Amino acid sequence: MLMNEVKMPVQKRSIERLEKVIQTTIDLLETRALAECNIQEISQISGVPRNHIYQYFPTIDHLFSLIVNRYFQKLQSYLTHNAQIYKTWSVLDIIQDALSNASAFYNQNKPASMLILGGPVNIEGFSLQEAVIEEISKEFVKIFTQKENPLTLKKTEDITIMIELIFSLMKHSFYRYGYITEELQQEALLVCEAYLEKKAYI
Amino acid sequence: MLMNEVKMPVQKRSIERLEKVIQTTIDLLETRALAECNIQEISQISGVPRNHIYQYFPTIDHLFSLIVNRYFQKLQSYLTHNAQIYKTWSVLDIIQDALSNASAFYNQNKPASMLILGGPVNIEGFSLQEAVIEEISKEFVKIFTQKENPLTLKKTEDITIMIELIFSLMKHSFYRYGYITEELQQEALLVCEAYLEKKAYI
Repeated sequence: MLMNEVKMPVQKRSIERLEKVIQTTIDLLETRALAECNIQEISQISGVPRNHIYQYFPTIDHLFSLIVNRYFQKLQSYLTHNAQIYKTWSVLDIIQDALSNASAFYNQNKPASMLILGGPVNIEGFSLQEAVIEEISKEFVKIFTQKENPLTLKKTEDITIMIELIFSLMKHSFYRYGYITEELQQEALLVCEAYLEKKAYI
Repeated sequence: MLMNEVKMPVQKRSIERLEKVIQTTIDLLETRALAECNIQEISQISGVPRNHIYQYFPTIDHLFSLIVNRYFQKLQSYLTHNAQIYKTWSVLDIIQDALSNASAFYNQNKPASMLILGGPVNIEGFSLQEAVIEEISKEFVKIFTQKENPLTLKKTEDITIMIELIFSLMKHSFYRYGYITEELQQEALLVCEAYLEKKAYI
């Protein structure tokens, strides 16, 4: 994966410069398409020399990968953060809440929507996306099985499948409407309900 | 879309050379990863000069896009071809048959699996994928509404959503197992059944 090829600096000054590069890229993506972003311009705007950027990000895809990874970590932290509250909730209420948080996050972060929902930037982006869907699934499995009224899973992959289904509808909504509509959030919830009922989980 | 940027030749000899380039690429992808394919090598193996290839495909992604487009046309033609037979079938039997044909197609064509299920090669690949999901959905809408016992659709987008759900599980299976397993085909069918029941279509 591209992410593994990114060597992060340890020196304070280097870290600060790198963060400036990352923030400049995110700012640029607020108003531009992915194809309209290049390292040369990021270097000009951020004031960080190109050679310095290339040292960490051999290509702009490496830079995008790092940003995507951070977004995923943020999405995951929502879940971990709410794990305690969710203990007394029903499975469907948890899904609805997480779905609505994730949708709000994407809708408020155009760069996140473009990089993640707009299709992986490259083949490594796809692996990253799939790997993170598995990570998020693990988080949900933990939440569902550690509830006061726990869900007994026949197969943890069932939850991964559910997350894949949700994710595909978020992508569909972004492709067709440019954001995750209320209607498609409802549809994703309905799909989850139908699936979990069919598997006799709820 | 990249596909629109590909200018196809009209002269017989040029067409033959281009087809040789396309076939060479497909053959290469049988044994290689996408990242291991480049125009220089395709030129060497096919005997078609590099300049000639670049004339039609400015980048290898243009070449991949054309191949993906052909695969999608083939998948779509399966549906059109069976439309007459499907007239007397149930909605679920049609989905199962189409799902099983598509899975067999992907499992027998490693290049198709890599290029389509392995994640779009690039951002244009994603748009192509979404555009084709909409095309395939239209085909299904036609089949379902022109059956002897026709389905009355409240919204044609419901079928697009169903195809998105199927597609996401095919991709998941390819990512996790390297092919579309029998089990995940069953799971995709179950998801369709659950969804269509929930929407009161069946």
